[in-house]
Amino acid sequence: MTRAATARVVDFTELYSRQQGFRASLFDAGLLIPTGVDGVYGHGAEFTELTSAIDALVAAAVREVHGGAATVLSFPPVMPREVLDRTDYIASFPQLAGAVSTYTGGDAEHRLLLAGRAAGHDWGGHFRASDVALVPSACHSVYPTLTGELPRDGAWIDVSGHCYRREPSIDPARMQAFRMREIVRVGSDRAAVAHRDTWAARAADLLAELDLRVQRAPATDPFFGRGGRMLAASQSADNLKTELLVPLYGDDMPGVAVASSNYHRDHFGVHFDITTVDGAPAHSACLGFGIERIALALLAAHGLDRRSWPNAVNAQL
Amino acid sequence: MTRAATARVVDFTELYSRQQGFRASLFDAGLLIPTGVDGVYGHGAEFTELTSAIDALVAAAVREVHGGAATVLSFPPVMPREVLDRTDYIASFPQLAGAVSTYTGGDAEHRLLLAGRAAGHDWGGHFRASDVALVPSACHSVYPTLTGELPRDGAWIDVSGHCYRREPSIDPARMQAFRMREIVRVGSDRAAVAHRDTWAARAADLLAELDLRVQRAPATDPFFGRGGRMLAASQSADNLKTELLVPLYGDDMPGVAVASSNYHRDHFGVHFDITTVDGAPAHSACLGFGIERIALALLAAHGLDRRSWPNAVNAQL
Repeated sequence: MTRAATARVVDFTELYSRQQGFRASLFDAGLLIPTGVDGVYGHGAEFTELTSAIDALVAAAVREVHGGAATVLSFPPVMPREVLDRTDYIASFPQLAGAVSTYTGGDAEHRLLLAGRAAGHDWGGHFRASDVALVPSACHSVYPTLTGELPRDGAWIDVSGHCYRREPSIDPARMQAFRMREIVRVGSDRAAVAHRDTWAARAADLLAELDLRVQRAPATDPFFGRGGRMLAASQSADNLKTELLVPLYGDDMPGVAVASSNYHRDHFGVHFDITTVDGAPAHSACLGFGIERIALALLAAHGLDRRSWPNAVNAQL
Repeated sequence: MTRAATARVVDFTELYSRQQGFRASLFDAGLLIPTGVDGVYGHGAEFTELTSAIDALVAAAVREVHGGAATVLSFPPVMPREVLDRTDYIASFPQLAGAVSTYTGGDAEHRLLLAGRAAGHDWGGHFRASDVALVPSACHSVYPTLTGELPRDGAWIDVSGHCYRREPSIDPARMQAFRMREIVRVGSDRAAVAHRDTWAARAADLLAELDLRVQRAPATDPFFGRGGRMLAASQSADNLKTELLVPLYGDDMPGVAVASSNYHRDHFGVHFDITTVDGAPAHSACLGFGIERIALALLAAHGLDRRSWPNAVNAQL
C-alpha cells in the first residue's frame, strides 16, 4: 500500500503537522503507546479490541462469500529468508525489507561484543544474517505452500499476519510493523482478474458500511532505484494495482490506502512453480486489508472515543 | 521457558522421534503448515481458532482477578533494539536474540547485491543492523513504558505479542516465533513475590481445568556461555523461576513448559529507572503463558480433532 499518485499540490509541512498531531492524540488517549521508534507502537486495550473487531469483520465477509472454499491461514511475523529471493522482493523493494540477524559466535567473541558495548560501540556488527526474514506482505507466506498443481478451480486463501516494512515515519498510518489480512486467489488469469475486481468492489462496500469515505485509485508500488521506475510505469500502464483511499488528514490532503488490490499476473506462479490443471503457470491476485489503517481511519472519521461513534458502525464491530 | 532440570536419564533418540512424529501429525492434519524452516510454521484455521480461544481464556482470567486494575497492552513483534541492551538480553541470551537488519545502500550497491545473488552468493551481508530487534519476551516491551515513579499500588500489566527466539528445533513445541501472554506485576518486592506465587497457582488451576496434567518445577533460563552458568546457579539458588510442565511426549519424557513465572527482583526496575513511591527501584514478576504450547499440549492430551475432546474442555474454549 503506497502513496497514491495525486495531481494536486500538497502542502507537506501542513500534512506532517496533521500527522504528528493525530499521532500525539492517539498517544494521549492510550490508543497507541510510543516505543521511541517511529512506526513501532504498542496498542492499548481499545485499539487492540478495535483491530480484532476489524479483523473479524473481514473474516466474516470472506466466509460469507467463499464459505469453506477459502483456506484460512495465519503466519508468524518471520518466514524463510529465501522467500524474499523467490518473490523478487530483494530485487524490487530492498529498502523495505527486514532480515533477521542472529548471534552465532562463542564465548570469546561475546566478550568482545560486551567490551565494545561497554565502550559505547554498536554491537550490531556481531550479528550475522540468518535464514529467516520479516514478512513484508501476508500473502508472500502463502505461495510457497502452493507449489505444484492446483485443484481444477484453483485456490482461495484467507491469510493474515504481521508484516514489516522499513519505512520509519511520524505518520501513525505508516507503521513499520502492522497486521494485514488478504484474500488471495490463485488460478487462471481470468479467475485472478475477476477476484481482484469483485473484491475491490466488496472491500469498498465493506469500508463504506463503516461510514468511511472511500475512493478507488490506480496506484503503483514503491519499486527501488532507477530500474524500479520502469517497473512502476509498467504496473501503472497495465493497471495492476488499485488502492482504496480514505481521507485521514483532511480533504485537501492525499487519502491513505486502507486496502489495496493487486493482480500479479503469473509472477508468483512462475517463481513458486504453481501451475493450473492445464500445466500453465498460475496467475494470482489479492485484496489486502491494512488492519491498523482501517482502525486509524475509523478513529479519524468518528472520533477517538468509540462510545461516540455512530451506532450503525459500532453494531458491525 | 526452558528445559526443566530433570534427574532421570532421558532417551533423547526416542524423544526426538516422538517430537518428529507429533510434528508430522500436526502437518498432516493441517494444524501447522511447514515453511521449510524448523520452528517457523503457518497456522491452519483450527490451530488459529484454538490459540485465539486460549488467549481469550487467559484474558478473561486476568479480568476476573484484576478487573480494570490491569492495563491491557499488546505490542508488535519488533521493538527498539536498544531494549535488548537495557534488559541485558544481549549479555545473557545473545544466542536467542534476533536483530532486524535492513538495506540502506543505493542503486550501485544494489546492482552488486543482485549480481552476487545471480552468482549464487548470500546477499545477507549487504544488510546492516537497524534500530529494531525482535521481541524475545512479551513483558520486555512493557518496562520502557513504566520509566518513572509508579502509582502507590504499583502496576499490573496484561501484555501479549509475538516473540522470537533463535532455537530452531524439530520439536513443534519449540517454535522460533510464538505468542506469549504475560501478567506482569511491578511494585514492591513483596507485591512482586505475591503476584508470582498467586499467579503460578492460578495458572496451574487454569491449565488443570483444561484437563492438562500440570507439574510445577523450579527452572533456570538458558544463560549464555561460561558466565551464564553462574547466573543460572544464582537464579536456581534463589528460586526465581518456576515452570508449569505438561507431558507432551509421554510420562517417561521431560514435560514441556507451557507457562512460567519469573521474579526479576529489581533487575528491570534498575535498568528502566522504575521506582516505587518511596523512591526505591521497583521489583517485578510475571507469569507468562505460551499460547501455542498450551494449544499443542491440548492437542497432545485430547487428540488432534477438537470435536472428540472432553465437553468440559471445549466448553471453556
